[in-house]
Amino acid sequence: MSLNSKYVIGIDFGTLSGRAVLFDVKDGSYITSATYDYPNGVIDEHLPGDSKTLPVGTALQNPMDYFETIVYTFKKILSESEVSPNNIIGVGVDFTACSILPCLADSTPLSEISEFKNNPHAYCKIWKDHTSQPYADRLNTLAIERNETFLEYYGGKISSEWMLPKIMEIAELAPEVYCRADYILEAGDWITWKICGVQNRNSCAAGYKAVWNKYNGYPSDDFLISLNPLFVDLKSTKLNAPVKTPDSLAGYITKEFSALTGLKEGTPVAVGIVDGHSSVMGLGICEAGTMIDIIGTSASHMLLCNRYKYVPGICGAVEDGIITGFIGYESGQAGMGDHFQWFVDNALPFSYHNKAELLGISDMEYIFSLVEKLKPGESGLVALDWWNGNRSTLVDSDLSGIIVGMNLRTKPEHILRALCEASAFGLRRVIDNYRSHGVEVKKFCAAGGIAEKNSFLMQLYADILNMDVYISGSSQSAALGAAILASCASGPERGGYGDVYSASKSMGSLKKEYFKPKKLNKDIYNQLYLLYNKLYDSFGVTDKSIMKSLKNLQKSL
Amino acid sequence: MSLNSKYVIGIDFGTLSGRAVLFDVKDGSYITSATYDYPNGVIDEHLPGDSKTLPVGTALQNPMDYFETIVYTFKKILSESEVSPNNIIGVGVDFTACSILPCLADSTPLSEISEFKNNPHAYCKIWKDHTSQPYADRLNTLAIERNETFLEYYGGKISSEWMLPKIMEIAELAPEVYCRADYILEAGDWITWKICGVQNRNSCAAGYKAVWNKYNGYPSDDFLISLNPLFVDLKSTKLNAPVKTPDSLAGYITKEFSALTGLKEGTPVAVGIVDGHSSVMGLGICEAGTMIDIIGTSASHMLLCNRYKYVPGICGAVEDGIITGFIGYESGQAGMGDHFQWFVDNALPFSYHNKAELLGISDMEYIFSLVEKLKPGESGLVALDWWNGNRSTLVDSDLSGIIVGMNLRTKPEHILRALCEASAFGLRRVIDNYRSHGVEVKKFCAAGGIAEKNSFLMQLYADILNMDVYISGSSQSAALGAAILASCASGPERGGYGDVYSASKSMGSLKKEYFKPKKLNKDIYNQLYLLYNKLYDSFGVTDKSIMKSLKNLQKSL
Repeated sequence: MSLNSKYVIGIDFGTLSGRAVLFDVKDGSYITSATYDYPNGVIDEHLPGDSKTLPVGTALQNPMDYFETIVYTFKKILSESEVSPNNIIGVGVDFTACSILPCLADSTPLSEISEFKNNPHAYCKIWKDHTSQPYADRLNTLAIERNETFLEYYGGKISSEWMLPKIMEIAELAPEVYCRADYILEAGDWITWKICGVQNRNSCAAGYKAVWNKYNGYPSDDFLISLNPLFVDLKSTKLNAPVKTPDSLAGYITKEFSALTGLKEGTPVAVGIVDGHSSVMGLGICEAGTMIDIIGTSASHMLLCNRYKYVPGICGAVEDGIITGFIGYESGQAGMGDHFQWFVDNALPFSYHNKAELLGISDMEYIFSLVEKLKPGESGLVALDWWNGNRSTLVDSDLSGIIVGMNLRTKPEHILRALCEASAFGLRRVIDNYRSHGVEVKKFCAAGGIAEKNSFLMQLYADILNMDVYISGSSQSAALGAAILASCASGPERGGYGDVYSASKSMGSLKKEYFKPKKLNKDIYNQLYLLYNKLYDSFGVTDKSIMKSLKNLQKSL
Repeated sequence: MSLNSKYVIGIDFGTLSGRAVLFDVKDGSYITSATYDYPNGVIDEHLPGDSKTLPVGTALQNPMDYFETIVYTFKKILSESEVSPNNIIGVGVDFTACSILPCLADSTPLSEISEFKNNPHAYCKIWKDHTSQPYADRLNTLAIERNETFLEYYGGKISSEWMLPKIMEIAELAPEVYCRADYILEAGDWITWKICGVQNRNSCAAGYKAVWNKYNGYPSDDFLISLNPLFVDLKSTKLNAPVKTPDSLAGYITKEFSALTGLKEGTPVAVGIVDGHSSVMGLGICEAGTMIDIIGTSASHMLLCNRYKYVPGICGAVEDGIITGFIGYESGQAGMGDHFQWFVDNALPFSYHNKAELLGISDMEYIFSLVEKLKPGESGLVALDWWNGNRSTLVDSDLSGIIVGMNLRTKPEHILRALCEASAFGLRRVIDNYRSHGVEVKKFCAAGGIAEKNSFLMQLYADILNMDVYISGSSQSAALGAAILASCASGPERGGYGDVYSASKSMGSLKKEYFKPKKLNKDIYNQLYLLYNKLYDSFGVTDKSIMKSLKNLQKSL
């Protein structure tokens, strides 16, 4: 650390907490960080100070928790590091999305106004609020009937987790909230507004979660009115703010926010980005054909391409959505770490738990120590990784998991091994899908806790994908991505970068060590992949009726 | 018990022990019993007094253990009951089959001769000795090539557990044993020979395990010679003894055996039967169209029919094989209680085990207490009950289990419930198969430990089969069946019965309480059965390649 060094802060807002991280602009090296848990957490039972039970599937947050988080973490970083505010040349925000809130023209959230304090629709509806499913269904039906072209960019279906179904729900169930809101916006855009006093919308959240694209903007008024007559002014009022690419300048730290935190007034703030997408830069990726897989409870894949090609079964294809100048593709696997946790919670026998305890390791570590000893094909099983439905390439949450090949000698580790292999086969299927539609996947990188910690799984990915597997150099890749955007917003005149490409290359990183495919394993996995595809096509394409019937029967009880 | 009452002993030889039971001839009521564990158990690692490791899959017994068992248990019954030997009017034997041994003309087992003491092929090879699989494969290939008509009576395939593959193995690997043996016979036939001094072969074991039928006898010499040139004299020497129906008279208790046990010399001995088949009489069944399901680790179904109809996928169809005058059909399900035990051993989580311990019940009892609370369809799962392959209707031990419909809310009890339902669906499929080939199934009865103890499962069977489910009146149904045969061999002049029908009706019994199908459950199960059949046809008929490939891959490692 030298007196002339420049720094940026990236703040990563997750589902339960936010973490601000200070990075060196030169090479992205980590300096310090601070985390803050949202005081109200996820509000899913009843509103603060209210005893009324919220509907099942509700997931709200108090936007002021986000503001508290940014104030607390920035102050803490400044007080605990030796870095002078003069050398902090930019701030960037990444935020889990879609998380939308209604607010007044002065940025006050409606949940802060006394008359709306007890109205759940005045709060921030976060991604995992699923109460808007009926509205998503209606939206999709109408869009299909009207041949709305935007569907092709979103795997043919708009998710209930996204902005429009959530706004439809507000307008329908709480028209007073809808009408009173001057703006309805992503929490990520709200927080940049709060700290720099200017409202912008980041093209990432707008593109992936609000059906916006750079050529046509949001869907037509005509279509929006068909969703709800109140939407006649949706675009001209509540969504009316400039949409900018994530690396753009949103504004500068205000005097007020400077007073609250010690950050220098006038420090540039980047427009910001969705959390998953931010990692692309955090890994230093700014070229077409490299896939980034962010592996957590589920998995999100990001992929850049120079020209738009139609790819079915993806989550989104957005020009300038991740890195300016590229089509950013997003696809996903609905279950990943979730599978492993399900297994440990629901299928790990007593004797295994005891053995783990004896060895002083966790159940998960113990069972994985057995799983990794197995040879490819040794389990005798093949599974479909659809415990949480299939996101890509089938976009169907009603699909479910399968295990084939069970016998009386099947052991718990065989089952978990099959689940791991199925996850990798599912990913290979997604990659095959891109390739067969003309989108190159030449390099593969992984980020997230599982990618960093589970080297067995990463070797398995290498073997099954028959590709080298690179791992994120930073365990804070999302915050690093936001910091990279900050260094772009700051620009070379302040010590930042002139464009996101050079910023990513300098600050983002991959680990030097990577996983290479093993020849023998590869051959056996090619055989197993044929079986996986047979099941995939049979249960997911040719005849979905078995899984659908089971689900319908269950629902009808 | 009156001084004029008459009694019979049925002795049931199982895999690890034998149990003799004394019954009242009048109504089959239980008087007393005695059990004896075979001192050498199952010999599967090395021969007694020998350190040489036996091949994997070997399962031998020392025939003298059977003799010790009958002597011990008969003596015990006589010494402990107040019944006079004068009032014991007959003895019957049922024996787990196929269990074959080579012996001399005077009935001495070859394993008792010093030069063969260290030769495993001189011992009794019991049903679960699977070392003769290559011989079974060869036999089946030859039989198909030669269009041998006997295959149609055995589901198109002869099992490695049966007599001919076992004799082929002896002739090939130990020709000195084969050549020295004057006879090769079922242990059940050997034991009746030992106690009455006359050799007979029971038509049950001969029919179901030795490819014999009452019109053509054993396969042709021509075919036997094609298996091994040594078999030129197999029929005329080693198999050369009269084949008689189980209810026939084999002979009378010898002076020697009387001296050993206290049983009266001259007491009639029945020809005997295989253990599973014996239960038919034990349940008092002697009419066409009633299925008896003996539910243990696997399940065996017995069914009588007046006229022979070709039914594919069964284990055997033998005229006079169970009850004289009927075609006895046998089919089976390769996994039953085994599934439940597999589940408890391999998939019951720690927390469930703790809960069971807290409640002071077994893991199995606890998980079943949760399983029975679920509604039909609530699990969201459908499974194929092929953990141990499929015996009927597909006769394929390489098939394996499937579970479809897994999701993150799937609980252990859902999985076990699906396994229970799959067992019942598998049975329904077997019954449908009989019916569609013109063999009536009008009534359903169950015997064995699971049938007696698991009333949830029996209700499930009633609901899924849409039939009343009756349960064996005796928990010793096999021994009771053997005792019924004894009362026939004894005949009315001694106080027994003139035929097996009247004996069965008087002595065999069902419990008064039975399980009736519940309307609501039945309808849902009809829907689930359609899904089960879809899977069954898809993985077991249309395309077995997924399961076969998994198994082959596993074998190739």
